[in-house]
Amino acid sequence: MQLTDFLGIELPIIQAPMAGVQGSALAIAVSNAGGLGSIPCAMLTLEALRAELQAMSAGTDKPWNVNFFCHTPPEPKPAAESAWRKALAPYYAEHGIDASAIPAGPGRSPFSAQAAELLEGFRPAVVSFHFGLPAAALLQRVKAWGAKVLASATTVAEARWLEAHGADAVIAQGNEAGGHRGIFLPETLTGEWQRDVATQIGTFGLLPQVVRAVRCPVIAAGGIADAAGVRAAMALGAAGVQIGTAYMLCPEATTSAIHRSALKNEATANAQGTALTTLFTGRPARSIINRVMRELSPISSLAPAFPLATSAIAPLRAKAEALRLGDFSPLWSGQNASGCREIAAAEMTRRLALGLQ
Amino acid sequence: MQLTDFLGIELPIIQAPMAGVQGSALAIAVSNAGGLGSIPCAMLTLEALRAELQAMSAGTDKPWNVNFFCHTPPEPKPAAESAWRKALAPYYAEHGIDASAIPAGPGRSPFSAQAAELLEGFRPAVVSFHFGLPAAALLQRVKAWGAKVLASATTVAEARWLEAHGADAVIAQGNEAGGHRGIFLPETLTGEWQRDVATQIGTFGLLPQVVRAVRCPVIAAGGIADAAGVRAAMALGAAGVQIGTAYMLCPEATTSAIHRSALKNEATANAQGTALTTLFTGRPARSIINRVMRELSPISSLAPAFPLATSAIAPLRAKAEALRLGDFSPLWSGQNASGCREIAAAEMTRRLALGLQ
Repeated sequence: MQLTDFLGIELPIIQAPMAGVQGSALAIAVSNAGGLGSIPCAMLTLEALRAELQAMSAGTDKPWNVNFFCHTPPEPKPAAESAWRKALAPYYAEHGIDASAIPAGPGRSPFSAQAAELLEGFRPAVVSFHFGLPAAALLQRVKAWGAKVLASATTVAEARWLEAHGADAVIAQGNEAGGHRGIFLPETLTGEWQRDVATQIGTFGLLPQVVRAVRCPVIAAGGIADAAGVRAAMALGAAGVQIGTAYMLCPEATTSAIHRSALKNEATANAQGTALTTLFTGRPARSIINRVMRELSPISSLAPAFPLATSAIAPLRAKAEALRLGDFSPLWSGQNASGCREIAAAEMTRRLALGLQ
Repeated sequence: MQLTDFLGIELPIIQAPMAGVQGSALAIAVSNAGGLGSIPCAMLTLEALRAELQAMSAGTDKPWNVNFFCHTPPEPKPAAESAWRKALAPYYAEHGIDASAIPAGPGRSPFSAQAAELLEGFRPAVVSFHFGLPAAALLQRVKAWGAKVLASATTVAEARWLEAHGADAVIAQGNEAGGHRGIFLPETLTGEWQRDVATQIGTFGLLPQVVRAVRCPVIAAGGIADAAGVRAAMALGAAGVQIGTAYMLCPEATTSAIHRSALKNEATANAQGTALTTLFTGRPARSIINRVMRELSPISSLAPAFPLATSAIAPLRAKAEALRLGDFSPLWSGQNASGCREIAAAEMTRRLALGLQ
């Protein structure tokens, strides 16, 4: 069965869920254009989630996707938190921040029974997961209302695991992709970041191997920026594509002015380049290189376990952004920002779809 | 002009030069099949180079390529050599190796006037370079006999630099590629390996951006393993492809039995995965993960500057290989070994060429 028939969509183009840079406005536009719009839910309170679900229901009668993280929240370790704040201390001093007033907190929550209960009232057609899958009972609850389940794999082993544990389709997330690497199996997510980062697989290598390894449809993600990229992914056996970065300059995205400016530079001769970094959340995620990544090294064991690194760097981000600086902001981007355009998301979706012909 | 017309070949398929696993036999087979065979020359003495050039001249009347490195040999640093041998000391003890008897030495040499002089007698149609380009006078000497010059770029900036300094075509070497990363500009090759490795760009991201950035033809490398991969690379704007790993099981390759076995495992469920590692030469290069990479961490600042890391690890490799172990061998491989087949190189070339249709 075609991915489009399976998901009930017209075009096998999934707008990647991107926490912090988009919500229902972008997702509605993509779904109404025939693709699959996605809502990133990991940073939403239940109240905010409800509002987004209501907005989606009101905004489109086409299928849409809600995306959740599936990490196991770590025990906070005071010594790790303290070491992290010590590493950031010179920046606190520079920006006049009272570090003792910074609350510790997770910043991102995994999928929960409460979220599932809320979703049951809206029955989204597609639910996608990052960092594995939720516990079996919770996953069954999602499937019970007929939702199709997608999940991200960064290795062939992860793809096989996801199919065996109930994913209906696998997203092969090549190393080019922006934001968090979906790594979740203990053998790939060892926390020895240097090693974990050194073994990440590019889309050209990962996609065809995942296609051969699983029976379910495979969605390509990472480095796909335009119609030619879509054509190439389909040539490598993808059933569809998931595209994030290219949508980040669309007016429906909530990408900040600082982030938009960095993306525009990235698409040109001013490119800083991107790197995987653990500094913003504690897990490797791809961001445009900025001051804190240059100065502390992008991959640092000083950052506490995901998602606990977030809280201590948050006030620095806020202070710097007030000065129009992205020095401490996660400037999520894939390795191919060349497809970014300041055009409506529907038009972007139509342009990407030219690669399907 | 088509790359095929430009290089005088029938198929825009370049067999990647792979030191240690192939010589003239593989290159002759690929050139005679209509692709472009390549001789890796960085590890050859002038005498061995002459023999290979004679073999190529006798073996084919089609165009062929000779590949050289362009690094600046570093000053040996006794302290660094000593630290490296100390890190390897437990392995020396395990294998009964007298470390004091190990000669220090470079292992790999850059392109030289002597090599150019030798080449002038054979006038190879194509000369390709890794780690930049030779000095202007030396490059002019190569161009003087009509050779077309190819060189590897790992970033858009490197691609622009190569075109501006005389490369006739650029090889966009995606992070998926096996063997040495061609990184050479000081801003990307900082020697802060953790950072340098974290910023490497996958083929899906690199290729289309390089195609947009330069006017010369762009050859795609990294993760291309079969006809579908060739088709995808051409869809992304490549004028041709350079393929290495897929040829490594061909009977014409000199790939060791240990290396062949690791590649076969890599192509199946037994995959160890690959990683970029500095352990074998001092520069990041992609190898199948083996014991020394697991135990010392693949990216290590303990390894002396390229290519000086080579000599101290060489006797361990020899001892282990005699025991049929690849524990200390550079098991070069790209991230997509799924295209490896034990078929004649001509047949491999024909199968890859199906992706051109």
